[in-house]
Amino acid sequence: MKKKLLLALALLAVPAIAFGAEEAVPTIASNAEAIKGVQTHLDYVWTLVAAALVFFMQAGFAMVEAGFTRAKNAINIMMKNLMDFAVGSIAFWLVGFGLMFGVTTTGWFGTTGFMLSDFTVGGDPWVLAFWMFQCVFAATAATIVSGAMAERTKFVSYLLYSAVISAFIYPIFGSWAWGSLFHGGGWLEKMGFIDFAGSTVVHSIGGWAALAGAIVLGPRLGKYGKDGKPRAIPGHNIPMAAVGVFILWLGWFGFNPGSTTAGNKDIAMIFVNTNLAAAAGCIMGMLTSWIIFKKAEIGMSLNGALAGLVGITAGCANVTPGSSIVIGAIAGVLVVLAVLFFDRIGVDDPVGAVSVHGVCGAWGTLAAGLFNIEGATSAIVGVQLIGIATAFAWSFGTCFILFKIIKAVIGLRVTEEEEMEGLDIAEHGGHSYFDFQMGSKQA
Amino acid sequence: MKKKLLLALALLAVPAIAFGAEEAVPTIASNAEAIKGVQTHLDYVWTLVAAALVFFMQAGFAMVEAGFTRAKNAINIMMKNLMDFAVGSIAFWLVGFGLMFGVTTTGWFGTTGFMLSDFTVGGDPWVLAFWMFQCVFAATAATIVSGAMAERTKFVSYLLYSAVISAFIYPIFGSWAWGSLFHGGGWLEKMGFIDFAGSTVVHSIGGWAALAGAIVLGPRLGKYGKDGKPRAIPGHNIPMAAVGVFILWLGWFGFNPGSTTAGNKDIAMIFVNTNLAAAAGCIMGMLTSWIIFKKAEIGMSLNGALAGLVGITAGCANVTPGSSIVIGAIAGVLVVLAVLFFDRIGVDDPVGAVSVHGVCGAWGTLAAGLFNIEGATSAIVGVQLIGIATAFAWSFGTCFILFKIIKAVIGLRVTEEEEMEGLDIAEHGGHSYFDFQMGSKQA
Amino acid sequence: MKKKLLLALALLAVPAIAFGAEEAVPTIASNAEAIKGVQTHLDYVWTLVAAALVFFMQAGFAMVEAGFTRAKNAINIMMKNLMDFAVGSIAFWLVGFGLMFGVTTTGWFGTTGFMLSDFTVGGDPWVLAFWMFQCVFAATAATIVSGAMAERTKFVSYLLYSAVISAFIYPIFGSWAWGSLFHGGGWLEKMGFIDFAGSTVVHSIGGWAALAGAIVLGPRLGKYGKDGKPRAIPGHNIPMAAVGVFILWLGWFGFNPGSTTAGNKDIAMIFVNTNLAAAAGCIMGMLTSWIIFKKAEIGMSLNGALAGLVGITAGCANVTPGSSIVIGAIAGVLVVLAVLFFDRIGVDDPVGAVSVHGVCGAWGTLAAGLFNIEGATSAIVGVQLIGIATAFAWSFGTCFILFKIIKAVIGLRVTEEEEMEGLDIAEHGGHSYFDFQMGSKQA
Repeated sequence: MKKKLLLALALLAVPAIAFGAEEAVPTIASNAEAIKGVQTHLDYVWTLVAAALVFFMQAGFAMVEAGFTRAKNAINIMMKNLMDFAVGSIAFWLVGFGLMFGVTTTGWFGTTGFMLSDFTVGGDPWVLAFWMFQCVFAATAATIVSGAMAERTKFVSYLLYSAVISAFIYPIFGSWAWGSLFHGGGWLEKMGFIDFAGSTVVHSIGGWAALAGAIVLGPRLGKYGKDGKPRAIPGHNIPMAAVGVFILWLGWFGFNPGSTTAGNKDIAMIFVNTNLAAAAGCIMGMLTSWIIFKKAEIGMSLNGALAGLVGITAGCANVTPGSSIVIGAIAGVLVVLAVLFFDRIGVDDPVGAVSVHGVCGAWGTLAAGLFNIEGATSAIVGVQLIGIATAFAWSFGTCFILFKIIKAVIGLRVTEEEEMEGLDIAEHGGHSYFDFQMGSKQA
Repeated sequence: MKKKLLLALALLAVPAIAFGAEEAVPTIASNAEAIKGVQTHLDYVWTLVAAALVFFMQAGFAMVEAGFTRAKNAINIMMKNLMDFAVGSIAFWLVGFGLMFGVTTTGWFGTTGFMLSDFTVGGDPWVLAFWMFQCVFAATAATIVSGAMAERTKFVSYLLYSAVISAFIYPIFGSWAWGSLFHGGGWLEKMGFIDFAGSTVVHSIGGWAALAGAIVLGPRLGKYGKDGKPRAIPGHNIPMAAVGVFILWLGWFGFNPGSTTAGNKDIAMIFVNTNLAAAAGCIMGMLTSWIIFKKAEIGMSLNGALAGLVGITAGCANVTPGSSIVIGAIAGVLVVLAVLFFDRIGVDDPVGAVSVHGVCGAWGTLAAGLFNIEGATSAIVGVQLIGIATAFAWSFGTCFILFKIIKAVIGLRVTEEEEMEGLDIAEHGGHSYFDFQMGSKQA
Repeated sequence: MKKKLLLALALLAVPAIAFGAEEAVPTIASNAEAIKGVQTHLDYVWTLVAAALVFFMQAGFAMVEAGFTRAKNAINIMMKNLMDFAVGSIAFWLVGFGLMFGVTTTGWFGTTGFMLSDFTVGGDPWVLAFWMFQCVFAATAATIVSGAMAERTKFVSYLLYSAVISAFIYPIFGSWAWGSLFHGGGWLEKMGFIDFAGSTVVHSIGGWAALAGAIVLGPRLGKYGKDGKPRAIPGHNIPMAAVGVFILWLGWFGFNPGSTTAGNKDIAMIFVNTNLAAAAGCIMGMLTSWIIFKKAEIGMSLNGALAGLVGITAGCANVTPGSSIVIGAIAGVLVVLAVLFFDRIGVDDPVGAVSVHGVCGAWGTLAAGLFNIEGATSAIVGVQLIGIATAFAWSFGTCFILFKIIKAVIGLRVTEEEEMEGLDIAEHGGHSYFDFQMGSKQA
């Protein structure tokens, strides 16, 4: 019934079927309005298609994280990625969106628009399209943390954390950098901070939260030998991880160009920049691993691609394609060095999330200033550095406290027995690969 | 050559390149026509992008079904999902589309438009875009059944069934509820039946067909112990099943908002409702399993997400986002209870297809009346109940007879030896995982 | 900041928010311009969404190739597919695009537009959208070869090859058939050659390159018994291969209709034709295998679907839906016969890439002439044959020489020890499935 109605409305736009009878005679003014109307429809379609692509990144993250970790924890990884999106969606609906994009009186966070109260039936539904796009972004920030905390975190504690980051930590920082996209206007964007699609707002926030989580948790059993040296704990399904990276790359074609939230010509350069940075990062990640380890490692190649993608996210709309290649290439080198660095200092991040999202997010934000198509001034670069530092202080600080509180109150880590047995059985009562003979090649 | 021509036409729309020479001087009327033309183009793009997303659900279903069943039948599951789409596409082209959307004289089914005869070269190609979108819907209804009949159905019998549901069973019911979308108009929609994207038309029809199939087939060997109590038969690749659910969730962003078959503002609320219901269903599926089984089960969490998606499908365009959360949450509880119920009464549905699609499809259809944004009256709810009951009677009835006939004539089930050995070898002559050591953990 | 600006621009199109103040009073002429502007925006959105879908085919190819080969080489397959896209993107940016679409004085290749020099900041960004779409096409041609050369090629040699095909071999042929899409105009298209989306330009070029590679490499160890008869080397993850085919099918909904590079009504028939040909090819691939091997083989069914897709790629815009079914069905038979043929004559193509892309690409190009909606003349068919023959001569010829040179200079094939051990350890220092007990069922 409703469908019929919608269709009837839609058909009014089809010349071959529309009847003159009910239509007003067009005028120049009505035509001008109608043109804006069609462009608006296109903006809806593009923004929501992009949102769907960004949603799909959840699958990509789940596959990368599960593939790079052990089979005995694969269900747990899938559950964490599924639930941080589900819980995050509800939390962002309930609280987060209002804090991030609501009208702000203080300049520190919004205080309207909770539970989509900005939307009234019959009113302009743009808030819904915009909410949808922002919701998948919020969930991305939350899900980044999952990988760094893999294979040892209590499931219920992870659920709690993911609600808090989606409801409070991500949206409050977001309001400082992006709040004006809907209402208000944050202090960071007023200074001229450039972060088009979220190298800092999404990736660094997620990456530094991941760092806090990995530190508070401590390393996995067996990660460091008696001599204190890090040992590799190989992932259980590398092809799955690789497919996950392809999916993430695809999703980034929604993440970056979708951040226009408008279907226009600007998306072309953003697409090209996103792709070239990813390609350059991928190649340089491989080459760096080849030089250091004498093998073209797949882990570093995949992380190189992600590093390039994270790196171009801030500047994708305001650097040239040539600059994108440079930004991506540097990110691809940086991620390998960062992974080695964190490994050495005792931060056990099973998938390299801190390096990919935290470090390369910071690099990308700096690069958006340095390679600014309109020219880089020390003022611009200075603001970028302020944004980078603020993101670190806010996300690492609040998450460190959050994880410490969770640890004290309900516990953050599973028992040694549960960790040895694997979280799939301990937390979820299941096997990932029931019909296969398992048994690690590691003695 | 042709490509060049099309490009040339397209370029006429690009101001920078178009030449004044061949263009007529624009008038208010020609502008008004041109505006409608661009909107129509947008409707094509949106409808077909949505169709592509719905097509991708085939992969999602295949992964969920294969992941939740045993390794020895994984090729068979993939073949069934591949072939019900391939056979379904041809069957829907040959017969189904004409029955569903052709001109009807009796009001019971259409009798024109077979083999896309509505389309003439040079004529309006909208019928092709609409066919494409409806074709992927028809295939979805067919593929739902695959999971419930997994691990014991003869392949050739499945092929036969999937041709019949795509050609006759789905389209005839569809013509009652949606026939007017193109031509004619069915008796159910004339009563005011609300089923925007197919909780009943697609999911319940598929779900009740699945129920008929599972009953006629009987349970898998070993599913019920000598005491008659159901035993769990664990799936062989849970991460694959989880990724399948992510893909289905993604596909639903085509399924529900694409059902506008028009690129306009209405899609925003449908996106949001779809996402919130899925999130709520997912959380409640998990919580319900946690309460009942003391573990946060992944199977129930994944089915909870699907339950929320199926539940919101009927009402996605005519309930508020807040109502969507309630509808999804109830679906998430319902699916767990339904799975336990069917398990107990001896219906062996390896993936819970009957509960997800049949039961939650019925719930969603009822909910579309109960939570109707324009107000729920007993009349509206009454019509919804008539639609629900009719779908059950039609789909379960015709499919029960169909499966009985197939059973009598060519046999519906493989032999015990074939079932023990697995359908991959018996039916397709192959191994899914040739390089792996297999061997179930089950004694 | 930039984001804010873009949003402000976008909002101008939203009637409810736009302010009269800064807008000029609309006129008939300005309205006519604005309409073209919106259509142009839609062309951008559609072309780039299609490009994203085509990009995703990389994941599909990787999964098909890895699934159909052995576990010990799965990382290598993933690396090849990842890297041919990454390297290909940079190579196509650096050289390929300019050769293919740059201004040509000789008619043999373009000489402008290298490194996207056609784009200037503030200028028309269409070249960027067009580049993006063409880049994913170039990468597809390169990646086809990966499967045929699987399990025995030196990784560094593969990298070299993929740079050369993306930079030179593919673009030069492309300029002959499609060069006029941007500038210039090639000799083949001037003759009236029909290859709408690349049965020849992409698939045959890739397929014949694959043939050259497979011949120069020689068969895998153990592929041919002492009697010279081919032996099956089963793939290690058939469900992954099947999901890969679903992804490829999805990606083709970008590949074929996206080749309009314009969002208009033409895409509807292309969608339908693409889908029907795939369905018909899939069914016929299955039936042919059923007749020959007495089993409904999944490998042949999957390759049948791909054969149908490749087959319809040339003619998707200029044949009827009914013809598409015939074209796809024939491709589905052809691919099975071709696989058997190449197997018998000693060409070891682990995934059937030569048959799918080379043979069915040629068939599709011929079929685009034979089933031409505007009538087939012997002149049209003759031109198609010239195109087919030229593609074979060019791609097989140049690639044969290229592979011979690589073989002579740095070696094309790994050592016997490396091949036995698997390329994952030998080339990349890793295990794909570390936690699983491996061990082939083959004695």
